[in-house]
Amino acid sequence: MLEPQSALVVLSGGQDSTTCLFWAKAHFARVHALTFRYGQQHVQEVAIAEAICREADVPFAALDVPLIGTLGSNSLTDSTVAMDATKPADGPPNTFVPGRNLFFLSIAAVFARERGIFDLVTGVGQTDFSGYPDCRDTFVRSLNVTLNLAMDAQFRIHTPLMWLDKAETWAMADRLGVFDLIRHCTLTCYRGVVGDGCGECPACKLRREGLEKYLRTRNADVPNT
Amino acid sequence: MLEPQSALVVLSGGQDSTTCLFWAKAHFARVHALTFRYGQQHVQEVAIAEAICREADVPFAALDVPLIGTLGSNSLTDSTVAMDATKPADGPPNTFVPGRNLFFLSIAAVFARERGIFDLVTGVGQTDFSGYPDCRDTFVRSLNVTLNLAMDAQFRIHTPLMWLDKAETWAMADRLGVFDLIRHCTLTCYRGVVGDGCGECPACKLRREGLEKYLRTRNADVPNT
Repeated sequence: MLEPQSALVVLSGGQDSTTCLFWAKAHFARVHALTFRYGQQHVQEVAIAEAICREADVPFAALDVPLIGTLGSNSLTDSTVAMDATKPADGPPNTFVPGRNLFFLSIAAVFARERGIFDLVTGVGQTDFSGYPDCRDTFVRSLNVTLNLAMDAQFRIHTPLMWLDKAETWAMADRLGVFDLIRHCTLTCYRGVVGDGCGECPACKLRREGLEKYLRTRNADVPNT
Repeated sequence: MLEPQSALVVLSGGQDSTTCLFWAKAHFARVHALTFRYGQQHVQEVAIAEAICREADVPFAALDVPLIGTLGSNSLTDSTVAMDATKPADGPPNTFVPGRNLFFLSIAAVFARERGIFDLVTGVGQTDFSGYPDCRDTFVRSLNVTLNLAMDAQFRIHTPLMWLDKAETWAMADRLGVFDLIRHCTLTCYRGVVGDGCGECPACKLRREGLEKYLRTRNADVPNT
């Protein structure tokens, strides 16, 4: 049974947000997707997100917010900053773009409200949160209240992956019938390699370990005949 | 006694934020100002804010965020929308730019954090809030928590005008020694007329009524000699 209203998915073209796109299609009558050009080095993310939306038959929009990439120092938008391989003890890794999810979701809310949409879907999760403070449940809930107060509206931010680990996210993709699409057509790699990625950056490592864990379970479920 | 740390003022060059700039100078050891080009029709606001900062000897920065003006329909950034003269019964007037203070303060927070500044000052107030939901105290407090969670930081948003009416804001400017500067050099008018303004738009009306009320009190304080 689908919710009769529309939902807007914040889509990056990576594993998590693409899984959320198909989750939204399974839960809402109409789904829209929104992505951002914010100075990320791998701007092909946007073309990938668009191609996924064509495949999913979902209306797609991309907005330019170059400010997000230049406001705070980070290694995702500044190629002169060497990427942290692991999380430093005293804070998030330098792949953290300060305020990114705050801006993405705030812009998404205004964009959605103009179209009469109040259900927002994001792929953030705190199980594998890598030290990013703006992936935590408490941040998303606080932002939800702030958005409602800012515009005197009733937004509902949905976070289907909040408490799932990467293996469970792969399981969800499989249940939604998009395991292969997500495995081969999404871009999670910090080095910009589509699908299984470079295999070495922190994002690839997390994705691959989850995939291997899920595949062990999946194969175990197949009866020996 | 000044607070030893720095503060960042969100400055538009209008009466309220300019009063806050001088309030901040009276309370913090160092003050910075930040303004935005967001597609407002009266972009001379930015030059006015810069001139005020020169006068106040405060470092000034301006950031381009054109998206804010185009995301949501409103009469401040779209000259094809006729301006509401009064607040409609069913919502804020169309001078409301959806998400504006949310974006201004969020951007200010990231900008400030990069410079080791965690005290933010804004001129919003709910006494004369004109139906703008993002001028209310509850919104600012909620956003303060959201910003802290988004960046794992301890921001403090200061709102010196939150509970003052316009007459009390004029009184504050006078106590701070900048009554004449604020009367003649700031831009509050929706039609872009500096100082006392066009006299007819809702912003001018509010400003003038406050000024007249304050001047009656001020003159009454002068002993008859």
